[in-house]
Amino acid sequence: MSSGIQKIEWASGFMSTLNTISEEAVLRQAFQGLRVGLVLHIEAKTAVLASRIQQAGAEVYVAASNPLTTQDDIVEALRSKVTAVWARRGEDSDEYISSIRNVLAAKPEFIIDDGADCIVESHRIGLGSVRGASEETTTGINRVKAMEKKKALKYPVVALNDALTKHLFDNRYGTGQSALDAFMRTTNLLVAGRVVLVVGFGWVGRGIAERLRGMGARVLVSEVDPVRAIEAYMEGFEVLSTLRGVKIADVVLTATGCIKAITASHFKAAKDGVIMANAGHFNVEIDVQHLEEKAGGKRLVRPNVVEYNYNGKRLYVISEGRLLNIAAADGHPIDVMDMSFAGQFCALQYLIEKGDVLGSRLVYLPRRKDLAIAKAFLRGHGLKIDRLSRQQRDYLGSF
Amino acid sequence: MSSGIQKIEWASGFMSTLNTISEEAVLRQAFQGLRVGLVLHIEAKTAVLASRIQQAGAEVYVAASNPLTTQDDIVEALRSKVTAVWARRGEDSDEYISSIRNVLAAKPEFIIDDGADCIVESHRIGLGSVRGASEETTTGINRVKAMEKKKALKYPVVALNDALTKHLFDNRYGTGQSALDAFMRTTNLLVAGRVVLVVGFGWVGRGIAERLRGMGARVLVSEVDPVRAIEAYMEGFEVLSTLRGVKIADVVLTATGCIKAITASHFKAAKDGVIMANAGHFNVEIDVQHLEEKAGGKRLVRPNVVEYNYNGKRLYVISEGRLLNIAAADGHPIDVMDMSFAGQFCALQYLIEKGDVLGSRLVYLPRRKDLAIAKAFLRGHGLKIDRLSRQQRDYLGSF
Amino acid sequence: MSSGIQKIEWASGFMSTLNTISEEAVLRQAFQGLRVGLVLHIEAKTAVLASRIQQAGAEVYVAASNPLTTQDDIVEALRSKVTAVWARRGEDSDEYISSIRNVLAAKPEFIIDDGADCIVESHRIGLGSVRGASEETTTGINRVKAMEKKKALKYPVVALNDALTKHLFDNRYGTGQSALDAFMRTTNLLVAGRVVLVVGFGWVGRGIAERLRGMGARVLVSEVDPVRAIEAYMEGFEVLSTLRGVKIADVVLTATGCIKAITASHFKAAKDGVIMANAGHFNVEIDVQHLEEKAGGKRLVRPNVVEYNYNGKRLYVISEGRLLNIAAADGHPIDVMDMSFAGQFCALQYLIEKGDVLGSRLVYLPRRKDLAIAKAFLRGHGLKIDRLSRQQRDYLGSF
Amino acid sequence: MSSGIQKIEWASGFMSTLNTISEEAVLRQAFQGLRVGLVLHIEAKTAVLASRIQQAGAEVYVAASNPLTTQDDIVEALRSKVTAVWARRGEDSDEYISSIRNVLAAKPEFIIDDGADCIVESHRIGLGSVRGASEETTTGINRVKAMEKKKALKYPVVALNDALTKHLFDNRYGTGQSALDAFMRTTNLLVAGRVVLVVGFGWVGRGIAERLRGMGARVLVSEVDPVRAIEAYMEGFEVLSTLRGVKIADVVLTATGCIKAITASHFKAAKDGVIMANAGHFNVEIDVQHLEEKAGGKRLVRPNVVEYNYNGKRLYVISEGRLLNIAAADGHPIDVMDMSFAGQFCALQYLIEKGDVLGSRLVYLPRRKDLAIAKAFLRGHGLKIDRLSRQQRDYLGSF
Repeated sequence: MSSGIQKIEWASGFMSTLNTISEEAVLRQAFQGLRVGLVLHIEAKTAVLASRIQQAGAEVYVAASNPLTTQDDIVEALRSKVTAVWARRGEDSDEYISSIRNVLAAKPEFIIDDGADCIVESHRIGLGSVRGASEETTTGINRVKAMEKKKALKYPVVALNDALTKHLFDNRYGTGQSALDAFMRTTNLLVAGRVVLVVGFGWVGRGIAERLRGMGARVLVSEVDPVRAIEAYMEGFEVLSTLRGVKIADVVLTATGCIKAITASHFKAAKDGVIMANAGHFNVEIDVQHLEEKAGGKRLVRPNVVEYNYNGKRLYVISEGRLLNIAAADGHPIDVMDMSFAGQFCALQYLIEKGDVLGSRLVYLPRRKDLAIAKAFLRGHGLKIDRLSRQQRDYLGSF
Repeated sequence: MSSGIQKIEWASGFMSTLNTISEEAVLRQAFQGLRVGLVLHIEAKTAVLASRIQQAGAEVYVAASNPLTTQDDIVEALRSKVTAVWARRGEDSDEYISSIRNVLAAKPEFIIDDGADCIVESHRIGLGSVRGASEETTTGINRVKAMEKKKALKYPVVALNDALTKHLFDNRYGTGQSALDAFMRTTNLLVAGRVVLVVGFGWVGRGIAERLRGMGARVLVSEVDPVRAIEAYMEGFEVLSTLRGVKIADVVLTATGCIKAITASHFKAAKDGVIMANAGHFNVEIDVQHLEEKAGGKRLVRPNVVEYNYNGKRLYVISEGRLLNIAAADGHPIDVMDMSFAGQFCALQYLIEKGDVLGSRLVYLPRRKDLAIAKAFLRGHGLKIDRLSRQQRDYLGSF
Repeated sequence: MSSGIQKIEWASGFMSTLNTISEEAVLRQAFQGLRVGLVLHIEAKTAVLASRIQQAGAEVYVAASNPLTTQDDIVEALRSKVTAVWARRGEDSDEYISSIRNVLAAKPEFIIDDGADCIVESHRIGLGSVRGASEETTTGINRVKAMEKKKALKYPVVALNDALTKHLFDNRYGTGQSALDAFMRTTNLLVAGRVVLVVGFGWVGRGIAERLRGMGARVLVSEVDPVRAIEAYMEGFEVLSTLRGVKIADVVLTATGCIKAITASHFKAAKDGVIMANAGHFNVEIDVQHLEEKAGGKRLVRPNVVEYNYNGKRLYVISEGRLLNIAAADGHPIDVMDMSFAGQFCALQYLIEKGDVLGSRLVYLPRRKDLAIAKAFLRGHGLKIDRLSRQQRDYLGSF
Repeated sequence: MSSGIQKIEWASGFMSTLNTISEEAVLRQAFQGLRVGLVLHIEAKTAVLASRIQQAGAEVYVAASNPLTTQDDIVEALRSKVTAVWARRGEDSDEYISSIRNVLAAKPEFIIDDGADCIVESHRIGLGSVRGASEETTTGINRVKAMEKKKALKYPVVALNDALTKHLFDNRYGTGQSALDAFMRTTNLLVAGRVVLVVGFGWVGRGIAERLRGMGARVLVSEVDPVRAIEAYMEGFEVLSTLRGVKIADVVLTATGCIKAITASHFKAAKDGVIMANAGHFNVEIDVQHLEEKAGGKRLVRPNVVEYNYNGKRLYVISEGRLLNIAAADGHPIDVMDMSFAGQFCALQYLIEKGDVLGSRLVYLPRRKDLAIAKAFLRGHGLKIDRLSRQQRDYLGSF
C-alpha cells in the first residue's frame, strides 16, 4: 500500500464524525451528477473529505489552497479517488493559480474553499456555473464579506467558521496542539520553563497559551482588546505590552490576524537568540521583510529555522513567518479536522438543498446541522449526555 | 471602627474599577436630585456601590435582594452612608417584600436590581416614577424578557449580565472561586483526589470545573448541550450522563439554571455519603423537596450541612440547595464585583443620559462603556496593553 | 448533639484510614493498661485519634500543642471520650506549659507530640515513665535530633514526618489547600490574576504554588536552593530573588522554615497594599517584630488582618505571621490528617511492640507499616491497584 | 555547512550549562593525554559533549549505545571533532558490539556509558586500562550494582542518574515532553479529550501524565506501589488497575521499568483501535512478542505504527514497543541533556581527580558538583536566587 493510501486510511479511521454525517448521502448517492471544486490544503484529512464527496456521487476536482503544504504522496493517492487533482508541492504562483483555474474550468456547481482564492477567482473570470460555496477560514470570510459589501457576490457562501463545531474547536484545540507540536519538532527545545510571549489572545492565542502552560512554559500575553486582556490576566498569564514582552521572551508566537504584530521596534528590543514563529493565517504578522532588508546576514540553522544577524543579535524565525503548524508540522490533528470537514460536508448539503433560495450573500450553517455534527462526534467517541425532561423544557421556556 | 465600616473600607480598597468609573460623577455631583432604589445582596461590596451613588449626589434607598444573605453589620454601617436601608438577616417573606415596597415608596427614578423582584413589584403596583432600571442576573433578565414579550414593560431595563465585563468574569472566575471556598470551609475536606460531578458546563459550570481541577479534584461533567459537552471533553473532563456520574461521584455540584437537575433517580443511584450543593441562582436544581418528603431522617451535622437518611444511605446537602457561594461563604470575591458594580454604575449613567429615548424594552450597556470599564480595571491593576497602529487598523478594515 | 460531638463525628466519617488501621487494636483492647500523653492541636481530627487510642484500652491524657488553635467545643466533647483534657482557647504561656505538665504528671508511657514541647519538658523534669514518643513535625524532629546529638535523649522517638504517608501528602496537599482556603476566607479577594510570591519551594511551597496556579494566580517563586529553583522554573513558575519578587507581588506567602524570610529590606521594597502571610510552622518567617517597632500605625482591618502603616505604605499581615491555615482557617483537611494520624497510631503500636529494643534515638516508622497505611487509604477510597506477578518480581530482582 | 554541523551548533547554543561547566577544563587543557571512551546515543547533543571533552585535551573514541538511534549526519560531523567514531544507523548486533570493542581497543582510561554495555564488555574482555566510568541510566546502574554485589566490579562507576540535576529533570521534564512530541508527530491525533492510561507513576510516568493533562487528555494511572498510587490520586488522576484501564483507554503508555506491564490479558481486554507505546528504557514493557505470535495479521499503517489484527480487533503499537521518544522523535530536549551531560563531564572530572582512591564500587557525584551544575544552569538562564544570611544559617544550624 502506498504511503498516501496508508495516511488516508489512518486519518479516515479517526474521522467518525465526517463518516457518520456523510453516510446517508453516500448510500443514497445524493450528489449524483454534481461537480464540486475543492481547494484545500492537500493532505490526508482533505483526501478523506474529497473521497466522501465523490463517493456520494459527485465529480470532485481538487487543487491546493497553499503551494507549500501539498503532500505529493497524498496527491498521488487522491488521483484514484476523485475525478481530477492539480497540485504539486512547491508549485510557483503561476502553477498555483492555474491549478485553481483548472478546477474552475470543470465548471463546478459548488466550491469548497480555504482562504477564498477560488471563490475570488470564480468571480474574476465571471464563472456562471457556481451555485454556492463554503469557506472555512476567518480570513476567507472577511474577503467574502468585502465582496458582499460591494454587492459583487454572485452566489451564496457559507461562513463555515461561524459554525460552533468549527470555531470553538479548530483554532483553540487544533492550533493549540499543532503549534506546540511544530515548535517542539522544529527546535528540539524544552518547553518547560521557557518564557513565551503569545501575541494575541483570540481563540488561537488562548489555545496556544493554555497548551504552552500545560507543557510547563511561563506564558506572557499581549493584546489590543481590553476585555481579552483581562481574560488573559484572570487565567493567570502575565499581561503586558508586546514591546515589554519581547524584552524578556525566549520565544515569541503571533496569533493576531493582523500585520506587523512583530516589527522593527520589537526586533530591536528582543533578546539575543529569541525564536519567533507565527500561528496566524497569513505570513504578515512577523515583519520578515524588514529582517530580509536590514539583517546583516541570514542562514538556515535547522530545517525550517532561519537565523538573522540583526543589530549584533541572533534572531530565529521558523518557516519564514508562515503558519507554523502547517509549515513545520502536520496541520491540525485529525480529530479536529473531522469536525470541521463534517461541517464542510453539511455546508455542501445545505447549498445543494437550499442554495437557490439563499441569495447571493454570506449565510450560516443552520443550527440543527451544527448540532447534528456535535451529536455525531459524541456518538463516535462513545459519549452519552443528558436530555432535558419535558418538565425542564417547560421551566426554561416559562421565563 | 465598627466591623461593618471595616469591611466596607477593605472592599473599597480593592474596587479600583468602580472608584475610577464613578470618579467624575462624584466630582460633578452628577446624580444631584435623583432618587435611586437599590435591591441587592446587602454586604460590603454592595455598600461600596450604594455609597458611590449617594456620593455622586443621589438619594439612595436600599433593600435586600435575598433575605438570607444580609449582613447586619453592613446594614448598620450603611445607614450613615445612604438615605435609607430596610434589611435584616433572616427576615421573612413579608418583611422581605415590604422592604422592597419601602424602597418603591420613595418613588425612585432608577432601580438597580438583582433577580428583578423590585422591577416586577414596581410594575405590579403601577409605580410611575421609574424611568429605568438595571438588572444584573440572567434569571432577572429572563423575567424582564417575559414582561417585554407580553408588552408589559413600562421602562427601559439594562441587561447588565450581557456586558462583557460582567458575564465573562463574574460567573466563571467569581463563582468558580467562591464555590470552592464555600465547599472547603463548609466541609474541611480535601479537594485533591475527590471525584466531583459538575452538572452543567455553562460559564458557572466551567469556572467551577477548572478551579476544582486546579485544586486536584477528578472532575466529571454532565450536560444537555452537545457542543458544550464536546468542549468539556476537549478540556479533559470526563463527560457522562448525570445518572452515571452520581454513581461514582463523592461530590455533586449543580450549575444548570434549571429545575431538578438532581432528583429522585439520582438520589437513588448516588453513593452513600455523597455531598451535594448548588451553584445556580435558585434552589431548584437539587430536588430537596423530594428528600424532605421521602427521607427517613434528617439532621444538621455541620453548620450548613444537613444529612438525609435516604434509602439506607447518608446524603449530605449544603445550605438547603441554595447558591452555596453566597449561603455558605462570602459571595463573589471583591475584584469580580468591582467590575460588575462598575457596570451597574455605568448602567445608571446610561439610563440617566438616554433613558427617555430608549423605549420600554431590554437594552444593553453600550460597547464603549463596557470598554471603559475594562480599561479602568486594567489601569487599576497596573496592566498596560497594546494599541493598534493606523496601518494595522487600515489592514483590519481592508477586507 | 453538641457542636463538638457533631464535628468529631463528621471528621470520623472521613477518616477511614485511621479507623481501619486501629480496628484490630480496638477489638483486641491492645493498649489495655497503658497511659498515653497526647499533645496536639485540639480540634476534631485530633479528637478522633485520641478517642481511638482510648477505645483500644489506653488511658489518654490530652493537652494542646498550641494555645491559639484549641477549639473549646472539641475540648468539651473530648472530656467524655478520654481520661483527661487540659486545654482552653487563648490560654497564656503559663497555662499552656502547666497543661503539658499535667499530662506528664499522669506518668504516660508514651507521648504523641506536635512540635516536641512535651518531649522536651519530659526530659527537663527527668520523667522516668516514658518508654517512647512520636513526633510529627519537621521542627519537632529537628529539636529531637539536637537532643540526640548531645546524647540527651532518654527514649526512642519516632520521626513520623519521615513516613511516606505523612510527608508526601500532609505538606503538599494539606497545606497547599488550606493555605488557599485561609487566604480566600480571610480576604474575600479573587485569586485569579493576582501576583503571588511564594518564598520557599519545599513541599509546602510547591503545594501552595500549584494550588495558587490552579486558582488562576500568577505565581512567583524565590528559593535559596539551586536545584529546587530549577524545579520551580521547569514547573513554569517565575523564579526570582525575594527582593525582586516583593516589588511586583500583590501577595507574599512564606514557606521557608527559616527566620526573616521577609524582613526590613523587603518591607521597604514592597508595593503599597501588599498582603503577607506565613505557611511555615513558626511565626518567625515574616519579621513582624520589625513592623511592630517601626510602623507608624497599626489597625485591624478585617478579622485576622492587620494593616501596618510603614514608610507611607499600607502593609497587611494575616494572623500576625502565624501559620495561616491553622490560625485563619481549619488546619489541614480531614483526609490528610486521616493518613497522618493513622501514622501516629502505627507509631504508637510500633513503640509498644519494639520500644524497649529501639534504644534512645530517633527511629523511623517501618516501611511495612507505612505501606499498610497506604493500602488502608486506597481501600477506604475504593481504589484498586496492580500487583507484580512472580515473573515481574523475578525480573526486577534479576539485575 | 553540513546538516550534522548545523545540528551540533544549534544544540551547543542551548547547552550553556555544559559549556560553563567545561570552560575551565578546556582552557587549562585539563584532560591532556587521557583517552575517553564514549558510548551514547549518537545525535547532536552527544556530539557537543564529545567535542567538549576532546577540546579539553582528551582523545575521544565514540560508539553508539543503541543501533537504531544513530544519526548518520552527526556521525559524519563528529569525525572532525573527536579522535574516532564507529557508528552507523541500523547496524546489526555484530556491528554494534564490534563498535564498542573498537572503543575498548583504544584502551580508554575512562568510559562514559548509557546502558552499561561498554562497562560490561570491558569487564568481559578483562580490559586493564580503565580507571573509572560513568553511567547515566537507571538500567545501567542496576547492572553495575549486580556486578558490585558479585564483587566483579574492577573500577569505580559514577551512578550519574542519582545526581539531583539528572534524575529530577531528565525523566520528568525530558521524557514528559518528548513522549508527547513523539505521540503527536507519529499519529497526528488530538491529545485533548483522549483517554490515556499511563502505566507506572515513577518520574517518567508522572512527567508524562502531567504533560498529557496539560495537552487536554483525560489521564488514567495504574501503579503497583500504594504510595505512588495515592500521589497519582491526589494529583487528580483516575487511579485503577491496568486491566480496568485498558478497557476504557484510547491510548496506553507504559513507564514501569518492568516486563509485561501490558500482556495477553490486557490485549484481550483492550478497546478496538487502542494505540500502545512504551516510554521505559527497554522494549519489554509491552509484550509485543505475544502479538507477533498470536496476531492474525500485521501491517505498517504509518511510519512507526504497526497494526496487529488480534481477536478481531485492531491494536496499534508505536515503534515496536521501543522507547518512543527516541525511536519516534528526537529524544530528550536539548536543555535537559545540557544538564545531564554537564553531569557526565563533572563525573569524568571527578574520576580523574579521585578515581584512584574511590575503590571498585558504585560512587555518587559529590553534592558540590551537583550544585555547581545547578548554579551554572541558573546563570545560563538568567535566573537569580536568594542566599541565606549568616543569621539564617545560624538559625537552621541551631536545632
